[in-house]
Amino acid sequence: MTGLSHFDDRGQAHMVDVSGKPVTDRVAVAAGAVRMTAETLALITEGRAKKGDVLSVARLAGIMAAKKTADLIPLCHPLPITRVALKLTADPALPGVRIEATVKTSGQTGVEMEALTAVSVAALTVYDMVKAVEKSMVIEGIRLILKDGGKSGRYEAE
Amino acid sequence: MTGLSHFDDRGQAHMVDVSGKPVTDRVAVAAGAVRMTAETLALITEGRAKKGDVLSVARLAGIMAAKKTADLIPLCHPLPITRVALKLTADPALPGVRIEATVKTSGQTGVEMEALTAVSVAALTVYDMVKAVEKSMVIEGIRLILKDGGKSGRYEAE
Amino acid sequence: MTGLSHFDDRGQAHMVDVSGKPVTDRVAVAAGAVRMTAETLALITEGRAKKGDVLSVARLAGIMAAKKTADLIPLCHPLPITRVALKLTADPALPGVRIEATVKTSGQTGVEMEALTAVSVAALTVYDMVKAVEKSMVIEGIRLILKDGGKSGRYEAE
Amino acid sequence: MTGLSHFDDRGQAHMVDVSGKPVTDRVAVAAGAVRMTAETLALITEGRAKKGDVLSVARLAGIMAAKKTADLIPLCHPLPITRVALKLTADPALPGVRIEATVKTSGQTGVEMEALTAVSVAALTVYDMVKAVEKSMVIEGIRLILKDGGKSGRYEAE
Amino acid sequence: MTGLSHFDDRGQAHMVDVSGKPVTDRVAVAAGAVRMTAETLALITEGRAKKGDVLSVARLAGIMAAKKTADLIPLCHPLPITRVALKLTADPALPGVRIEATVKTSGQTGVEMEALTAVSVAALTVYDMVKAVEKSMVIEGIRLILKDGGKSGRYEAE
Amino acid sequence: MTGLSHFDDRGQAHMVDVSGKPVTDRVAVAAGAVRMTAETLALITEGRAKKGDVLSVARLAGIMAAKKTADLIPLCHPLPITRVALKLTADPALPGVRIEATVKTSGQTGVEMEALTAVSVAALTVYDMVKAVEKSMVIEGIRLILKDGGKSGRYEAE
Repeated sequence: MTGLSHFDDRGQAHMVDVSGKPVTDRVAVAAGAVRMTAETLALITEGRAKKGDVLSVARLAGIMAAKKTADLIPLCHPLPITRVALKLTADPALPGVRIEATVKTSGQTGVEMEALTAVSVAALTVYDMVKAVEKSMVIEGIRLILKDGGKSGRYEAE
Repeated sequence: MTGLSHFDDRGQAHMVDVSGKPVTDRVAVAAGAVRMTAETLALITEGRAKKGDVLSVARLAGIMAAKKTADLIPLCHPLPITRVALKLTADPALPGVRIEATVKTSGQTGVEMEALTAVSVAALTVYDMVKAVEKSMVIEGIRLILKDGGKSGRYEAE
Repeated sequence: MTGLSHFDDRGQAHMVDVSGKPVTDRVAVAAGAVRMTAETLALITEGRAKKGDVLSVARLAGIMAAKKTADLIPLCHPLPITRVALKLTADPALPGVRIEATVKTSGQTGVEMEALTAVSVAALTVYDMVKAVEKSMVIEGIRLILKDGGKSGRYEAE
Repeated sequence: MTGLSHFDDRGQAHMVDVSGKPVTDRVAVAAGAVRMTAETLALITEGRAKKGDVLSVARLAGIMAAKKTADLIPLCHPLPITRVALKLTADPALPGVRIEATVKTSGQTGVEMEALTAVSVAALTVYDMVKAVEKSMVIEGIRLILKDGGKSGRYEAE
Repeated sequence: MTGLSHFDDRGQAHMVDVSGKPVTDRVAVAAGAVRMTAETLALITEGRAKKGDVLSVARLAGIMAAKKTADLIPLCHPLPITRVALKLTADPALPGVRIEATVKTSGQTGVEMEALTAVSVAALTVYDMVKAVEKSMVIEGIRLILKDGGKSGRYEAE
Repeated sequence: MTGLSHFDDRGQAHMVDVSGKPVTDRVAVAAGAVRMTAETLALITEGRAKKGDVLSVARLAGIMAAKKTADLIPLCHPLPITRVALKLTADPALPGVRIEATVKTSGQTGVEMEALTAVSVAALTVYDMVKAVEKSMVIEGIRLILKDGGKSGRYEAE
């Protein structure tokens, strides 16, 4: 099965051997959004002005989830993450919350999955905290924005 | 902050008290998709015909993630899940993979977050297994389809 | 070994049989503090006025830790927690941060360990976030304040 | 917010970038205690003479907790720990149990939090195993004793 | 696929729906052994006489593993365990260590997997602690001895 | 206690100091089996021909368990695994399922426990998925086949 390296030559799932790959500095940036009504977004934005802050809780959930990536994604290698940062911004034009995660490591495989997992769990946490007022929110556009370091080189989303 | 029950009256995050709520049967259905090129989807579909099966691995990852929901979402109550099932279908019209998760429990809060988490992690797993051939895949449309049981009644997405 | 129920009659550690105990509503409150210099406390207090908030991060860490109690304490029963709330207050008289955690469940054993674990991990998180400016902080006075529900009745610290 | 490196320049929590720091050998020693009545301590001490051993269980809980530190403390980096050892000693002068934990790693950040977490969870485990006979025990004096390795140099508590 | 309830009618893995099953008291007993040379067993037995105790560490590992069963076995339901006890006995006739685990719950599915997991992880821990002196140890005979409670009735191994 | 390095010179359990050991490439292979009736094995084999596949689920469970080894085995060092692969084969001569796991890392300690844990959890998963039709299955012969890398040199089971 050309290209799908998570399967061996008998077509069976395995965790790919990366032991021959050099340890290099790697970075990945992923993004996504939670779309909601303008009224719901206003509730979140007002909360920020006060103390209760949906976006702070979601940011923390995303950071912690990045550290659990190898626990969640079956064939993902465990990696010693050296940086995780999330930006969550209320975007009235969406309307909704935009999420961007940056993850770094010094290791033998990339951190795309860590960045995508951070965005996904931050988005789920936004949903959880606001679902009492709107159940029709949609998590969308979760994708890789940038990846660098490692043999396959730099990738930037168009 | 009217409506955002995850904050107390001082605006501080807490895990809501559900001890006074009755134990009832609850179900939630969530859906989402991973959009990719037709060529990438063909690789997945061919794999199914052989033994290596992206969709089976993703299905299992989603089931296991549903059990970790309270570990991932900070203010989510732990719940004894009584059923988890995921449907993953290749949709050439997207093109991509459609994911639907159904979760049941008998408890004091709903299982929306468990269903949404199952869909999200199944989608991330599809991405992980196919990313060697396409990095531009997008996870999209993660939303609640149905929720029933509990005081707030039945919800069905339009 | 009279009184130490975590050992059987051969003196070997076990998880006590609670299957014969009735399911009752239970609550526990625990408290503790992180003592530091007035200068360090001022840094935390100023942060609250701005956006970066040590106490919010610690509160969330305490809530999440309550859910991991049975994972951390070897002979502790897993319990479906129905409420967790933490209060963290800057106390210039200490000087330092005071922490109080309230946990509820409807189950066959108490939630003292969940409340004490929430306080401990919130205190560790305060330490982690401020250690760059003061390494001599001390976590102290972690104790049970109140326990109610269950056969052994109500306990209140003097 | 000068000094609080866990917040970025917008005041938002993040996991600090350590990717530029060299990998060095690091060690940290933390200490703490569980204070109790002389009668309770006698129960523990007698148990040691027999087979059931509160201190052995607590020691093991502390070792295992050190490995979970990054899971518990939100902004803590995951680290490949290379050594964990705990000393638990009954101190009739307290009266109570004194706990000391030593943790080593070869990494880009220190292991203070791992040592403090090991002490905290060992103390909680002592509490758990003895709480049936005394609920008024107090966990106290959890602090860093020694830290070495890394750019910030050696720290020794006075 | 008659009999294999972990697959639905399309042959896809799912976590079986147990929401219609009544909550009943359930118990399971599992057993197993670690076979080794008489010399290795003697080392373990001598250790017991002193303070360092392989069997105590393995017993604790088994208890903690029982609580992680649903995390390890993909289609296993999470269950609130109400009792876990392990017996580890040195058997010179084997020679080796015999392990027996008893698990109880009050729930909608049985605890066979919890008992079998406790035995397996206790056996692995024995192996880990003794492997420096003998690598040829064998873990064997892990099986269900007794199961009771629930619709399928009592099972006793012959 | 000569040879049992998991105990210090006072006979107390600790996680051995490996900080002075060089980082080398290491590999371990472990094996085991689940013995069952020919009828039960036929059910599994037929399932493979269709879509529902006991062996694929067990393989994945084994891979994920390898990553949790340090969480399960109290004194085991956390290690960044660089490869995990499992072979599960139906053996009519047993009759039953044979399991073999290969794990690699580049680290300071070996990966025997990771390979043995992967085999054990894969075996438990086979049991879980087939127990509805046969409760008398036995997990047996879990042992180390090969270990290489590190100071103690190459080990091959006879």
